[in-house]
Amino acid sequence: MSTIFTKIINKEIPATIVYEDDQVLAFNDIEPQAPIHILIIPKKQIATLNDLQIEDAALVGQLFLTAKLLAKQMGFDEAGYRTVFNCNADGGQAVYHIHLHVLAGRKLSWPPG
Amino acid sequence: MSTIFTKIINKEIPATIVYEDDQVLAFNDIEPQAPIHILIIPKKQIATLNDLQIEDAALVGQLFLTAKLLAKQMGFDEAGYRTVFNCNADGGQAVYHIHLHVLAGRKLSWPPG
Repeated sequence: MSTIFTKIINKEIPATIVYEDDQVLAFNDIEPQAPIHILIIPKKQIATLNDLQIEDAALVGQLFLTAKLLAKQMGFDEAGYRTVFNCNADGGQAVYHIHLHVLAGRKLSWPPG
Repeated sequence: MSTIFTKIINKEIPATIVYEDDQVLAFNDIEPQAPIHILIIPKKQIATLNDLQIEDAALVGQLFLTAKLLAKQMGFDEAGYRTVFNCNADGGQAVYHIHLHVLAGRKLSWPPG
């Protein structure tokens, strides 16, 4: 089952894209929870973290290398940021295509939800 | 600079270890924020997400494959969970050896801190 993120990848619906390569897309969350709130997704559709396969390991790592790159480019690397993946209902997953939340621009509190 | 996690890896101080292989160690957080709160770390010391290198991508993925495995083994995969990395002060990073927080056993709220 494709999700709204497939439509964003295919440019069928708009998003504020901040990074794109052949494997990864990053765009602003439309309901930001911090001054900076980016979603980083693999173009490959993986529904949840429970669906990760061994061959996806490097792709997951690419999402974090993208977070590092954006943090440096956008200037929030030194102050810091939080990254979050939600899995299924208890995690609060809203779209069943894995997406890494990157939140920055304010001090994130604890616990993380 | 090594951290307290190096001592846990080296079994110099105790921890409730729930998973170990040659690259990854997982143990219970001593200040749990949910009924299940596990830290999954690479044995390789990487201080922050900003220090990730291209060659670390698959290792980061292994942390998530470990989360998937533990979720299945411990029976919280279907209900769900949240995974969090904190980077630097705004993220709330407390130990400068990257560690993936896995929280489960309750409904996690939003925003994530």
